[in-house]
Amino acid sequence: MADNRGVVYMGPGKVEVQNIAFPELKNPKGKKITHGVILKVVSTNICGSDQHMVRGRTTAPKGLVLGHEITGEVVEAGTDVEFLKKGDLVSVPFNVACGRCRNCKEQQTGICLTVNEGRAGGAYGYVDMGGWVGGQAEYVMVPYADFNLLRFPDKDQAMEKIRDLTMLSDIFPTGFHGAVKAGVGPGATVYIAGAGPVGLAAAASAQLLGAAVVIVGDLNKARLAHARSFGCETVDLTENATLAEQIAQILGVPEVDCAVDCVGFEAHGEGKTSKDEVPAAVLNSLMEIARAGGSIGIPGLYVTEDPGSKDTAAQKGSLSIRFGLGWAKSHSFYTGQTPVLSYNRQLMQAILYDKVQIAKAVNVEVISLDDAPRGYEEFDSGVAKKFVINPHNMIPTTKSKAKVKETA
Amino acid sequence: MADNRGVVYMGPGKVEVQNIAFPELKNPKGKKITHGVILKVVSTNICGSDQHMVRGRTTAPKGLVLGHEITGEVVEAGTDVEFLKKGDLVSVPFNVACGRCRNCKEQQTGICLTVNEGRAGGAYGYVDMGGWVGGQAEYVMVPYADFNLLRFPDKDQAMEKIRDLTMLSDIFPTGFHGAVKAGVGPGATVYIAGAGPVGLAAAASAQLLGAAVVIVGDLNKARLAHARSFGCETVDLTENATLAEQIAQILGVPEVDCAVDCVGFEAHGEGKTSKDEVPAAVLNSLMEIARAGGSIGIPGLYVTEDPGSKDTAAQKGSLSIRFGLGWAKSHSFYTGQTPVLSYNRQLMQAILYDKVQIAKAVNVEVISLDDAPRGYEEFDSGVAKKFVINPHNMIPTTKSKAKVKETA
Amino acid sequence: MADNRGVVYMGPGKVEVQNIAFPELKNPKGKKITHGVILKVVSTNICGSDQHMVRGRTTAPKGLVLGHEITGEVVEAGTDVEFLKKGDLVSVPFNVACGRCRNCKEQQTGICLTVNEGRAGGAYGYVDMGGWVGGQAEYVMVPYADFNLLRFPDKDQAMEKIRDLTMLSDIFPTGFHGAVKAGVGPGATVYIAGAGPVGLAAAASAQLLGAAVVIVGDLNKARLAHARSFGCETVDLTENATLAEQIAQILGVPEVDCAVDCVGFEAHGEGKTSKDEVPAAVLNSLMEIARAGGSIGIPGLYVTEDPGSKDTAAQKGSLSIRFGLGWAKSHSFYTGQTPVLSYNRQLMQAILYDKVQIAKAVNVEVISLDDAPRGYEEFDSGVAKKFVINPHNMIPTTKSKAKVKETA
Amino acid sequence: MADNRGVVYMGPGKVEVQNIAFPELKNPKGKKITHGVILKVVSTNICGSDQHMVRGRTTAPKGLVLGHEITGEVVEAGTDVEFLKKGDLVSVPFNVACGRCRNCKEQQTGICLTVNEGRAGGAYGYVDMGGWVGGQAEYVMVPYADFNLLRFPDKDQAMEKIRDLTMLSDIFPTGFHGAVKAGVGPGATVYIAGAGPVGLAAAASAQLLGAAVVIVGDLNKARLAHARSFGCETVDLTENATLAEQIAQILGVPEVDCAVDCVGFEAHGEGKTSKDEVPAAVLNSLMEIARAGGSIGIPGLYVTEDPGSKDTAAQKGSLSIRFGLGWAKSHSFYTGQTPVLSYNRQLMQAILYDKVQIAKAVNVEVISLDDAPRGYEEFDSGVAKKFVINPHNMIPTTKSKAKVKETA
Repeated sequence: MADNRGVVYMGPGKVEVQNIAFPELKNPKGKKITHGVILKVVSTNICGSDQHMVRGRTTAPKGLVLGHEITGEVVEAGTDVEFLKKGDLVSVPFNVACGRCRNCKEQQTGICLTVNEGRAGGAYGYVDMGGWVGGQAEYVMVPYADFNLLRFPDKDQAMEKIRDLTMLSDIFPTGFHGAVKAGVGPGATVYIAGAGPVGLAAAASAQLLGAAVVIVGDLNKARLAHARSFGCETVDLTENATLAEQIAQILGVPEVDCAVDCVGFEAHGEGKTSKDEVPAAVLNSLMEIARAGGSIGIPGLYVTEDPGSKDTAAQKGSLSIRFGLGWAKSHSFYTGQTPVLSYNRQLMQAILYDKVQIAKAVNVEVISLDDAPRGYEEFDSGVAKKFVINPHNMIPTTKSKAKVKETA
Repeated sequence: MADNRGVVYMGPGKVEVQNIAFPELKNPKGKKITHGVILKVVSTNICGSDQHMVRGRTTAPKGLVLGHEITGEVVEAGTDVEFLKKGDLVSVPFNVACGRCRNCKEQQTGICLTVNEGRAGGAYGYVDMGGWVGGQAEYVMVPYADFNLLRFPDKDQAMEKIRDLTMLSDIFPTGFHGAVKAGVGPGATVYIAGAGPVGLAAAASAQLLGAAVVIVGDLNKARLAHARSFGCETVDLTENATLAEQIAQILGVPEVDCAVDCVGFEAHGEGKTSKDEVPAAVLNSLMEIARAGGSIGIPGLYVTEDPGSKDTAAQKGSLSIRFGLGWAKSHSFYTGQTPVLSYNRQLMQAILYDKVQIAKAVNVEVISLDDAPRGYEEFDSGVAKKFVINPHNMIPTTKSKAKVKETA
Repeated sequence: MADNRGVVYMGPGKVEVQNIAFPELKNPKGKKITHGVILKVVSTNICGSDQHMVRGRTTAPKGLVLGHEITGEVVEAGTDVEFLKKGDLVSVPFNVACGRCRNCKEQQTGICLTVNEGRAGGAYGYVDMGGWVGGQAEYVMVPYADFNLLRFPDKDQAMEKIRDLTMLSDIFPTGFHGAVKAGVGPGATVYIAGAGPVGLAAAASAQLLGAAVVIVGDLNKARLAHARSFGCETVDLTENATLAEQIAQILGVPEVDCAVDCVGFEAHGEGKTSKDEVPAAVLNSLMEIARAGGSIGIPGLYVTEDPGSKDTAAQKGSLSIRFGLGWAKSHSFYTGQTPVLSYNRQLMQAILYDKVQIAKAVNVEVISLDDAPRGYEEFDSGVAKKFVINPHNMIPTTKSKAKVKETA
Repeated sequence: MADNRGVVYMGPGKVEVQNIAFPELKNPKGKKITHGVILKVVSTNICGSDQHMVRGRTTAPKGLVLGHEITGEVVEAGTDVEFLKKGDLVSVPFNVACGRCRNCKEQQTGICLTVNEGRAGGAYGYVDMGGWVGGQAEYVMVPYADFNLLRFPDKDQAMEKIRDLTMLSDIFPTGFHGAVKAGVGPGATVYIAGAGPVGLAAAASAQLLGAAVVIVGDLNKARLAHARSFGCETVDLTENATLAEQIAQILGVPEVDCAVDCVGFEAHGEGKTSKDEVPAAVLNSLMEIARAGGSIGIPGLYVTEDPGSKDTAAQKGSLSIRFGLGWAKSHSFYTGQTPVLSYNRQLMQAILYDKVQIAKAVNVEVISLDDAPRGYEEFDSGVAKKFVINPHNMIPTTKSKAKVKETA
């Protein structure tokens, strides 16, 4: 009989649900900590960035417990935890952050200086992010709990909206961050590269921020159809018409106020090159279609090394970027992991008061923990879904499947 | 036969439609200008701040042509006007601004340094604001036209939405400015003091900005009913329960993230003092219910002198403010005329793309120029309406009356 | 033999050095905490806001241990303290802050929501600020030490500059905050009301921020002379020429870009009223001389109740403010306790790299703990000095006395 | 007898002083304009970006009159010019801007939408920037004069400081913009790539902004020596120690808070590759040494096409950038032409009040118009000087030569 079970990376293309250790109030070096809590995981989502590891595009070691999108219930709290107690339902920002270093004090929790010896920034269940155990599991430990966790004010109300609230741990703030950094506000015209969950979350965020028009571009027709289901315009990048031409068809001008890159380094080209990986394709196209003076938000992940790339420069992290184009247009570029904690409280409020339907926007499908491998596989195939793992069957039967049929 | 007709202030409580001079390309000193245009007025709204004059609360001279909320069609353009031409349909920001002084260059067009010899800031048809002739008329002159005017990109489309677009000249940007300065964004809880047109515009703005909850407070039940008609919560300040108590009933806590004063110096007290003028009542109540660290946006007008006040200190512009309360809560306060030009383009986009129904929010009623005196009278009586004068009968028959019945 | 000695408030006009308890790792309710440290106090300054209590203008109880401007050496650290160790030399922000609430996460540490049951915001040794024991003592306890404390990187270097670094706990960040909020930057013209230590710190901050001209106004000629000693222009408010007239003599225009209120509620009038307390005198004068569009930073303390005032309205916290004047000029007003933690690291760097001489600007005089009562008395008499208590004689002999003579 | 004489580009490596047409109040298309002025040029500086053209790295046509750094006296004003008159001494921002388009209204004058048919943004005397005639001449025309020009308040005072004030037309604001966008403020550690005039101006700007340490890096030892002459630390990029290593020697850590690229696309490598053009070398090195969370200001010019490059990708504007490195550190990147008008007034004040010695920082040498070809040649050879042309001998004899000897 196992104390805990979790989703484990077992090599390229392979994840398994295995028995894993029950979490302890210890940091990755094994030192006891009093500021952490143990959570019973209520929901934990599969993320596109998990796919980078599972596809073998990183140096993630076999045996890594995956999962950094976590919502749970406090079952044990360290002695230094003052503002949370057993039974509290909380959202876990994917960034592990100490709340005590210069960056955390400045709300730059995506680049905490203390939780990862290798570089700035930590995360749960992720290669090179500090060794914190992942949360696609029944139980998980969260350090610096008072600082990191967002408590839902009413547990029953929260369980009713858990499909939405579970998006607060990563992709909703991540999409929102991209939109905010791109300068989205009332009346803005917005182009979002990528109709995966982060792209759709950015689109929903742009709508929440009052954008006049939100255009989503992708190569995947099913995902584009889903984007249209909640009011986005779309651009099919497999078509011969260029991105700028398609935008002009929608807006009358071939440019937008704000551009968001929700694709990152595994980008493909457009049109004839849409089957090839062209790592700088999205960045270059955004400089083309963002207006002079515009900003480009880049929540999509770019890596320092990409050993799996066919492009030898890209293997060493170098991309061929038309930087002079952006310079001529006075563009600003905003990169990096989203500091979830900067946004999650206010986005929780937007969910609780029905101002945004993020679960619908990303098309949530709730699955059991044992179904996680199928979730990874389906997600990798490009379905227009966001998989939410439900390790304790605490989430009511999914309604999203019906929704999918309606919008398909 | 008259060349032009306009609404003229004839003393306390009295406005008349009279023959007035056809506008010329001259400034108030009579100097010829080449940067101005003559507009055929398509729509021009009656504003709450017009009422301050008409009620005799200012030193406005008899004979003043009223009107600073103007939308029109270019019928003549000065030789220095480069980017507008005859036939263009444009929105006129109520602020007259030169576009050439330090403040205008910094988009502080509400306090232009050159268009008014008496003080910073100019406006059309307003006492002490530089002597620019008002636009509640058939024709009006707008100086520095390239800088000041917002051209609608498609005239037919614009005429279809003219009830909404006419709000761009003042109250929509003014309400929006109040909300922005109060820090409204996604997920915020917002209290707006005043359910007159500016308050309702602030409420619609807060919704557009993604607020979680918008609460509007007033003494006028009809206006509160109208606020509820588009999704606001309301607080009736004639009730015995305090503002804080009523907010707590709605939100569970007696405070909000953001507070906006859309009332200004003609404020009344709450509850038992709700029939008395208490000039600082709104400011003091907002410090009470805004959270620590919150901001208070103050688009409501406060004056340097108020000779008509019963309060002798207020006559000289001094209000009795509980400033220590705000200080203890680290409040920030933002005052002044809205620089319309900072906001009107993006708000136009929000209207054109159907992201906001501002005409519905303020309950537009279109009236003829000859009906302007009735409009003033009804508005002064506290009806929940925004009157739009239609000097050339270019606006299609109003639909708003029907709406009023529905929501009443 | 006493374990600890401290400065104790013993009623209006009276402070004594008494034996007090050695600090424990407990919060004011007596609950053990693991996140705190005990400091051996190296330096601790007398603050103008201490004077409000000592003058009997507050409800401070007899027996209160004073002192919120503290620099010390860690002698004991709780088990949850991870990033500080025995022997570290640290600056203590005067705000007690948990680092875990919404406000602290947003760097609003001046209004922490958890360290004070009565209201937002805590401080050491201060009435109504949460009951945290003051640090004008040999030893003091600091909670949430990893979050709150600023460690000096090199202890020897720090001890050489301790007269400057001791100002990081309060008045340097407080003056800096006032200047920042007033919008001071390169080329700005600045007026600072008040030449006490906070005013002088604001002046030095404005210089550091690149201001073109810094003008300091006061009624106290000695303090004004000191302001001139480091390059400020000054305005003597006892003169018959108005503030605006005196500013015009310096700048050629009767207004400044930025205005800072470093006086607060115990303000006096100007000229003929300069002997009278006029609580809103500074606020009103700043609206007069700040340019249209300017900002007013208000680090000077305003209180919710002032029972000691002769003005009955002021007793209840109401001030007679010419608010319409500020409104007409589109002023913004920024109030509240400074969140020291937002500024202290960068100001430490400015000190360590010799970019600012804050000790010279505020005219530090180092005194022994036993001399604290004399320090209070002299400071209250209006000398142009900032008293730094040196409880363990760790600070080298003061050089400031010589300086005083030179500049007098 | 010629009406006007100017510096003309005559092909790669060659400039000549020739007779040119006297300016008229017409735009480049020949249309009469009433908003322009004719200036008698008092000073006009040779800029590094002029060198790009003169070196033949652009498509600049033979016959182009050069010069975009202009200070002059109004000798004729169009009829629409209201706030300038004959005799006024003014600084000309290098950006030609209309003051009437969306971007100009937002103070984005570097990307004015109307003054250049080819792309956003115009300039005087520059290829592809709208055809406005250059000002390295005796006389020049400036359009939209009220909007564009900065008038010096006192002409005599201004002539005394003309060596400093002449830097307001371009490089002082440009360096300042780079520093501001990099987030420089009090206490910051700053690295500036490039010790040419823009780099030195950025260094002086960083000092003005209160930086704790300003480090300047270059391959040119004379320029580095000059940087040291006004208090900068320096890094010699020809040495074997890497940039990070040299920074660590200065600061104790191998990174800075803020980084500014004042080099642009004609960058060279470091150490062994320091003789080779490596267009992305500076960008890549800045990502390496900027702290996580830092910002990178990029006033250095990057081009959409560089036909003269040896690198075939760079010929088409593509650079090989280690973008993932910046992403991992959450860097922000700010590009584009500086909107001079956003900064020049406040920097003028800093000069007039002696808060900055920009002429000394960039090492001004005043030369006659006839000496301009020598100035171009010397500047191209890498001397640590900024050449100021003095077409009417209105500038008093240069003192800078003596200075150079002192500092060498």
